Order: sequence, then structure tokens, then C-alpha cells
Amino acid sequence: MGAQDEAAGARRPGGRSARVRQAVLTAVLDELVESGYGALTFDRVAARAGVHRATLYRRWPGREQLVAEALLAQAGRDIPLPDTGTLRGDLRALAHAVVTNITSPLGEGLLRTLVSEAVRVPDISVAGRAFWEQRFTLATEIIRRGIRRGEVPSDVDPQLMLELLIAPLFLRLLVTAEPVTTAHADEVLDLLLPLIGSTPAGPQL
Amino acid sequence: MGAQDEAAGARRPGGRSARVRQAVLTAVLDELVESGYGALTFDRVAARAGVHRATLYRRWPGREQLVAEALLAQAGRDIPLPDTGTLRGDLRALAHAVVTNITSPLGEGLLRTLVSEAVRVPDISVAGRAFWEQRFTLATEIIRRGIRRGEVPSDVDPQLMLELLIAPLFLRLLVTAEPVTTAHADEVLDLLLPLIGSTPAGPQL
Repeated sequence: MGAQDEAAGARRPGGRSARVRQAVLTAVLDELVESGYGALTFDRVAARAGVHRATLYRRWPGREQLVAEALLAQAGRDIPLPDTGTLRGDLRALAHAVVTNITSPLGEGLLRTLVSEAVRVPDISVAGRAFWEQRFTLATEIIRRGIRRGEVPSDVDPQLMLELLIAPLFLRLLVTAEPVTTAHADEVLDLLLPLIGSTPAGPQL
Repeated sequence: MGAQDEAAGARRPGGRSARVRQAVLTAVLDELVESGYGALTFDRVAARAGVHRATLYRRWPGREQLVAEALLAQAGRDIPLPDTGTLRGDLRALAHAVVTNITSPLGEGLLRTLVSEAVRVPDISVAGRAFWEQRFTLATEIIRRGIRRGEVPSDVDPQLMLELLIAPLFLRLLVTAEPVTTAHADEVLDLLLPLIGSTPAGPQL
């Protein structure tokens, strides 16, 4: 398999080049989940993906860029934006999706990689910020829909409310090591809902 | 310096043995903050603490136990329990102390070590759980005091309320990489305070 085939593949979406990229990025994620960033090498990724190490070096200058690309490619995938018709239904579906995601081996592995490496590895830090900005931008739409439906006062800060809702889930997973469950998410949501959905809209001008 | 001196020191609180232990545990924390758990070795810790590597091997079977002991020794130190006379004052002081702690190089370094290694290293996992249990047990006293003063309904779950208050600070530090500030902590507290301090106490029997 020569460089010519790869060049041809690169011009064909879904061709060999795209398949190689997908196999490599999947291998990176699997390595991160199994062994962590510290143990990740081009050799291990290449072996796992079934490609030559030289193929990796041609496309990615180092493991920082490789890991950052794998994280970003994964970012858009695993939490859909719910649209149930009510604020409570949407927030509940979102919180449950977060629980499912961060307690899955893949989700938890990627999250821990972001948390431990973002502070040391600039490319992973950039990937992490892009990832969370994208997530929050998507999710604040839930609050904005609530505002448009008249369920939420227009002075509510969507991002802050989402932080309050999902932060306790991450706290339990990452910090206190207590069980992360949909029952806990529901308890948090039911406490917070009056703050989001039925606070007076503040002084009217 | 022979084993006899050390044995004598071990029997004298504040003696050579205690000083060596303190120097070693401080060196461990400094290494964790500077380079992370992945790079921590007995050689580096011994050099930093100014002791022989053999001294470390006599006392700690491996770096897992060494790091766990250093984390636990640090646990009780850096967040005092405020007692300002009001629920809001206490919670505000607590939240500000958490901000100061987790944004300091030492606090952030230890936290990231816990987060990244607790999942792989059983001794660090045990140390982490003991650490947080101790912290929450101390801090829930703030809510219990509020209940005794009649500021807080007796059916409020102290641990859940503290989780809601501090979780957004950890989310910003560890996950979204947004600024962790006392202004943000105050904003969260002011939102949550009506839930903690003025919720109806539920159906009375």
C-alpha cells in the first residue's frame, strides 16, 4: 500500500484515507480508556489500528495532536439535544444523557484524560475548551426554548443554570467518587427547577 | 545515620523520624504539583527531601502508599470550618475557601492527582474517599447549625446542598476550564440560598 493509494484515498471521502483516520482515532480512544494518556504511544496506537507507524507520523506530528483530534472527533457524538416539549422533560433527558455518558467506559476515560492532561498539554486543553463550548452552546438552547415558551423568566442565565444542574454529576464522578445515577440527577433537577422555571422575572421596568 | 537513630526518632514525636517524614511528604506534594503522578519516583522524592532512597523504601512499600499518605496528611489542613454566626456567612466563607484552595498550585495539583489516579491506584482511591468524607462531614455542620438556629428547614439534605454549592466551582476548574472566582461562587450561593434557607419545611405532621 503506497503513498499514492493514500493520496487517492485522501481525495475520496469515505475512502481508504478516511477509514485509516477512523481506525486510528478509534484506537486512540480505546488506548486512552484502557491505559490512559501516560501510556499512549504511536507504536501502541498503530498496532491497535492495524496501520504502519509511519502512517501516523505522516499525519500527526505528535501524540498531543493525535489525542486532541480523537477527542474533538468524539465530541459531537454522544449527547443528543433532547426536545420533549417541556423544560423539565428536556433538562431531565439532558441530565440522564450526561449520566449515561460520563459513566460509560469511553465517556469516563475521555473525561479523565481531559481533566488530567488539559493542564499540561496545550493541544488537549484547546480540544477540551472547544468540546465544552460546543456542548454548552447546544444545551443552553434548552433554556432558551423554555424562555420562548414562557416557562423560564428571560433574565435567567442559561449557562449558569446548566452548570448548576450538571456540576453535581461531575463532582460525584471525579471528586467525591460517589455513585452517579439518574436518581441523583432527578433529585438535583427537582431542587433546581423552581429556580429555573418559576422564579419571578425580577423588577420590571 | 543508622537505623538505630531512626528507631529512636520514631519513638520521639517531633524527633528526627517525624522531621524526615514531613520532609518526604512535602517533597511528594511538590513533585505532584510540578510534574504529576506519572513522573513521580522514589529517586526524585528522596533527592528533593534530602534523604536516602533506602529511607523511603524502609517506610513505604511503593509510591502508591507514599502518595496516599501525603494526600491524607494534607487533607485536614487547608480548609478551616467557618463560624460567622449566619448560614449565608458560613456558606460564603466556605465557598471562598474552596475557591482559594482549588486555584492554588498545591490544591489544584493534589486535586488533579486525585482525579486522574484514583481510578487506577487503589491506595489513592482510598485516600481520596477518606479525604472527601472528612471534608463533607465537617462542612455539613454548617447546615446543621443553620437548622439549629431555625434558618434552615430540618428536612434539608445537608450533603446535597453542599454538593450543589461547591460542584460548579469544581466543574469550572476541572471540566470546562472557565475562571473559578469568588464572584462566581457568590452568584451560585445567592441563587441557591432560597433553596437552603427559606424552603417550606414540607408537610407538618
